[in-house]
Amino acid sequence: MTKVEVDAQAQTALDIEAARRNAKLDVPATRAFIHGGEDAWKAHQRVEAILSADPVFDKSQKYYMTRKETYLKALKMQKRIEELRDIHHWDVRDMSFVHLALDELLPMGLHVTAFEPVVMSQGSEELKAKFGPLIKHRGIIGCYLQTELGHGTNVSQLETTATYIPESEEFEIHSPTLTSTKWWIGTLGKTANFGVVQACLILPGKRDMGPHLFLVQLRSLDTHEVLPHIKIGDIGPKAMGGYASVDNGYARFDHLRIPHSQMLSKFAQVTKEGKYIKPPHSKLSYGGMLYIRSTMVTTAGRMLAKAATVSLRYTTVRRQGNKGVDGSECQVISYPPVYCRLLPILSRAYVFILLGRNLTYAYMELSKQLSRGETESLPDMHAITSGLKILVSTTSVHDVEVARRSMGGHGYSAYSGLGKVYSDALPSVTYEGDNFVLDQQVVRAALKAHNQSQSSTHQSTFSAFLRLLKEKGSETQIALFESPNWVDWRVVVEVLEWRAARSVESYAKALENGQPDASADQRVSRAVTEAYVATQVADMIQSLSRLGLGDSAAIVGSLLTLYLLSTAEAALVDLLSLGVIATQSAVDKGGPAEMLRLEVARSCRELLPEAVSLSDAYGFTDWELDSALGVYDGRVYNALWDRVQTEPLNKSEITDGYLEFIKPLLERGKKLANEELKSKL
Amino acid sequence: MTKVEVDAQAQTALDIEAARRNAKLDVPATRAFIHGGEDAWKAHQRVEAILSADPVFDKSQKYYMTRKETYLKALKMQKRIEELRDIHHWDVRDMSFVHLALDELLPMGLHVTAFEPVVMSQGSEELKAKFGPLIKHRGIIGCYLQTELGHGTNVSQLETTATYIPESEEFEIHSPTLTSTKWWIGTLGKTANFGVVQACLILPGKRDMGPHLFLVQLRSLDTHEVLPHIKIGDIGPKAMGGYASVDNGYARFDHLRIPHSQMLSKFAQVTKEGKYIKPPHSKLSYGGMLYIRSTMVTTAGRMLAKAATVSLRYTTVRRQGNKGVDGSECQVISYPPVYCRLLPILSRAYVFILLGRNLTYAYMELSKQLSRGETESLPDMHAITSGLKILVSTTSVHDVEVARRSMGGHGYSAYSGLGKVYSDALPSVTYEGDNFVLDQQVVRAALKAHNQSQSSTHQSTFSAFLRLLKEKGSETQIALFESPNWVDWRVVVEVLEWRAARSVESYAKALENGQPDASADQRVSRAVTEAYVATQVADMIQSLSRLGLGDSAAIVGSLLTLYLLSTAEAALVDLLSLGVIATQSAVDKGGPAEMLRLEVARSCRELLPEAVSLSDAYGFTDWELDSALGVYDGRVYNALWDRVQTEPLNKSEITDGYLEFIKPLLERGKKLANEELKSKL
Repeated sequence: MTKVEVDAQAQTALDIEAARRNAKLDVPATRAFIHGGEDAWKAHQRVEAILSADPVFDKSQKYYMTRKETYLKALKMQKRIEELRDIHHWDVRDMSFVHLALDELLPMGLHVTAFEPVVMSQGSEELKAKFGPLIKHRGIIGCYLQTELGHGTNVSQLETTATYIPESEEFEIHSPTLTSTKWWIGTLGKTANFGVVQACLILPGKRDMGPHLFLVQLRSLDTHEVLPHIKIGDIGPKAMGGYASVDNGYARFDHLRIPHSQMLSKFAQVTKEGKYIKPPHSKLSYGGMLYIRSTMVTTAGRMLAKAATVSLRYTTVRRQGNKGVDGSECQVISYPPVYCRLLPILSRAYVFILLGRNLTYAYMELSKQLSRGETESLPDMHAITSGLKILVSTTSVHDVEVARRSMGGHGYSAYSGLGKVYSDALPSVTYEGDNFVLDQQVVRAALKAHNQSQSSTHQSTFSAFLRLLKEKGSETQIALFESPNWVDWRVVVEVLEWRAARSVESYAKALENGQPDASADQRVSRAVTEAYVATQVADMIQSLSRLGLGDSAAIVGSLLTLYLLSTAEAALVDLLSLGVIATQSAVDKGGPAEMLRLEVARSCRELLPEAVSLSDAYGFTDWELDSALGVYDGRVYNALWDRVQTEPLNKSEITDGYLEFIKPLLERGKKLANEELKSKL
Repeated sequence: MTKVEVDAQAQTALDIEAARRNAKLDVPATRAFIHGGEDAWKAHQRVEAILSADPVFDKSQKYYMTRKETYLKALKMQKRIEELRDIHHWDVRDMSFVHLALDELLPMGLHVTAFEPVVMSQGSEELKAKFGPLIKHRGIIGCYLQTELGHGTNVSQLETTATYIPESEEFEIHSPTLTSTKWWIGTLGKTANFGVVQACLILPGKRDMGPHLFLVQLRSLDTHEVLPHIKIGDIGPKAMGGYASVDNGYARFDHLRIPHSQMLSKFAQVTKEGKYIKPPHSKLSYGGMLYIRSTMVTTAGRMLAKAATVSLRYTTVRRQGNKGVDGSECQVISYPPVYCRLLPILSRAYVFILLGRNLTYAYMELSKQLSRGETESLPDMHAITSGLKILVSTTSVHDVEVARRSMGGHGYSAYSGLGKVYSDALPSVTYEGDNFVLDQQVVRAALKAHNQSQSSTHQSTFSAFLRLLKEKGSETQIALFESPNWVDWRVVVEVLEWRAARSVESYAKALENGQPDASADQRVSRAVTEAYVATQVADMIQSLSRLGLGDSAAIVGSLLTLYLLSTAEAALVDLLSLGVIATQSAVDKGGPAEMLRLEVARSCRELLPEAVSLSDAYGFTDWELDSALGVYDGRVYNALWDRVQTEPLNKSEITDGYLEFIKPLLERGKKLANEELKSKL
């Protein structure tokens, strides 16, 4: 390498070092805060160090494999994880770090996130005694068969049947149509030997009792062969290479018999004679769904943290465009359209991570209540988790792509790492309830609360904003905020709550007058969820001073405030059209909309010197990020160069296919060219 | 198959048949209109029939290959295309159909779209005489080396040098740093043997004359070995598996000498003595860029047409949710949030295709002018194509993903086909000028026109909307439209023009008062471009009655009107904040924003019965779409089932890796479970 080269590459390292040196943030303290304590962070680090040092988890070949090879590699990782768990005595928390640290989905993931919780929370004591230990230690591997080829979100219309046969005390599981084939089932395609099947319970006299759950053995425990009366396969590759390591599968049942004891009968039951015993509460089985949705918030936060870390580091060392004061081109991060796109993403990462932690506590509390048969908080929690599921999945998928594009051309290299984050995250907008369908449920809950709020004094957490309508009433004709003081985060929270209140009110009016427009569900769902999050963020801001962050509390507080501001900016069309803020009355002075935009920009500018440190505080290692553009030391060009040398096409100078495809083309062309030249003479 | 199964599958076919039967559109007439005449459509069909029948273009394995295999397969296709061209005597138009019909990018694509036009438009007569016929017949294969590892959009800072050596009458091409390595160059990695290199011309006395173009041989024509003084390789896989078939490559030059004659010297020249001769106009070489940008409009239109066709067909046959009048669940397309997302996409597909055709004519006209040295229309055309490049790339990438998500879970199957469309389209937002950087150029052009418009009577096509400010002046204090009549498309066009005018005016004011906010460039760029497109669409609507569409002219007219309406809906935040339309004064009656949304919904509802036929009119064959969800006959579940059977993981019932990875895990689990059970006894 020449001296010039060394210099050019050193510049990137100098830029990132300068960014770290100039920041005031206490990174270790903030890191402990994000991770829920120094102890948890240290435990995470220990797990990461073990994984990253193990060749089984090497990532260097991941973009060069076929999907089948990717699946096999993930199986290998799965086995190694169990070995490491035994060696290092990893507990449940350590195991959760394993899944956070890995960037590959594991084929048996659904065993832990769906199969095990469903059986353990809804199986009878007898069933749990028999299968519990096997499930816990993976003596059997399970999946959760709900979605069918013809039905996803609308579970009530599932076609698979489970017909009770009193004579033999068995259920007969059957797929009557092609469209009733179970489809998209993670872990089913090649891996699982058991599954929980959702099927319509048919009692004697052809009485259809709707969907219920049944434990079904799918493959031989000795040979792994698919059992008689079942057809199983993998459903093939996913869009943009996502979920390549997971064997989402299909299954068709042909009059398969299972014993009476294998209905999950903690709540609803069928007696041996075929009599139905209703569950005490129709929604007691919702717990699992709430759990999955609450974990999605944490996952989304971590994904955004990754996207923010990579893009902030890269745009800090990338120089392009105008010459700055130092005579070099400016750092890309220094352009307002860049940092004003990236810093709000950073703020959402923080908020989602903190929100996810709160939600986990709330879920634990709810579980205790449900196990006592108390269901009062269920509707509220259901509305909140539905709204949050939509918000975090839509937002995080969108933000990851914004971060990737902010890196310009190189963001499109697979080595940027964010393409894979995106394609794996993508299904979150349709699974666990298609977002557009879930919107309706959130709106329904909000309307119900609105109707009740007029006659009752009870206010739920979910719909706390409705109190505003009572306080001020809906008769207000002019804009509520003529000139809101955007610098005060309390004002931003109030504006967001007013937006939710007026959205709901407006929707109710539209229902009376005819029909709401086609995107009304989406807008109202988002407005009420963001109002809820805003009040949560307000609590976070107020508690910051008590959390051992020292001087960094102010910086984190500014970041959380930016969350509120950028949320309000994205909601401008609501704020204006619902008369929450005044419109611009004349072109020569900016109205509150323009003032808000300028305050977002000011807030971003103020946080800019802390950006790299705020993302360092997530504590990602280079191995975790696996991004040539997000390397900790800033030497992105060297990292890209090194990765490129591993590309299989570069193994030979003269490409395969040259003699067969390129050479004949060139010879044909030369011949034709010569003929043309001759004909001109 | 049982009777029930046949019925279930027949339903999908019945649904799509009914959709076609109930439509009033004259599909053949509309198809001819879209394709620019029946003759062009027939020619397209002939080419498609030949390709789809040829096993070289078989698509059944495309999702199961490594990237290297994908590249080799594309090379094979490339060779076969030349053979077919000879056999069938395909002309230039036929060849353009080949590229439209294929859904795989070809390794030599850049030879035709960049290398050939650059050499032929900017090379000297001597150079063209020597290399023209070889280039034309691909006796050599070329690429275009502009972007470097350290520099993309900011071409003026490229680091590669071409130093003229008068003694030997040679240029010395050199890459002084790692970051000066040419990077992202399509066709370079493994295929091309020639290239046009953009490098800073250095004349004796170290005078840096800025970027110029040089023709450079890269590989031996006999052996395909890389020539001395050059290092070449492939830059590796792209995000989300996009562009897998293209060998984007890198090249470093180490004091490589090329003859004086190989500078492209039609405009700027260097005499043999080393004297610089300036080009007559600094922007004469912009023609090529304009050409590429104008083709991007057509490509985007066709991409949207694909996305619309697939998603409209699938949502027509997919039934889910509420029970309809026929007792079955409703067709997914029947839900307003679905059809109000998809029909605007359909409208944009039509508009972009028609716009692309107009732009091609405009480009041909401009080329004639440029060849006469007339550059008057260049600035206008530059602003228009920049704005359109941003608009169509951002919109089409976004819409393809909206269409994919509208198909729910199955949209995430690779077999839906739209994932690949998305990942291949993605770089269009960053290449040919990063959209965020280009925004600034559009804004600059608009501001310039705004300044000039006050002193001049000349109005360009690009900034025609500025006339409004002169007519009414900027002193208007209240909202311009209190209650716009959204049913009249002329009103929508005027509203969009006012938005552009006020956006520019507001930006100019913000510049005076301080600084515009961080997203101002983006908003203004979009506003002015959409105003331009709106006036173009107005022309299209007015000319429809003369185009042989008969009764279908009214339907196509409604679709074009929907384009205007949905553009205005997406612009609501501008319309409200700039005071173009009035805000809602009270919650109990919908303001103009709500009226607009309802008009969009009404317009979509009216077009709904024509949706499938309007997309049929694009004339895609199943082979072209290659989507299990977009099959013409509607039998989507059969198509999915059939595709799944080709998945390599399904070749064996017991998966590879079972004995090595799964069995040991199960045995470990069984052992642990037994121990646990024993310990409890």
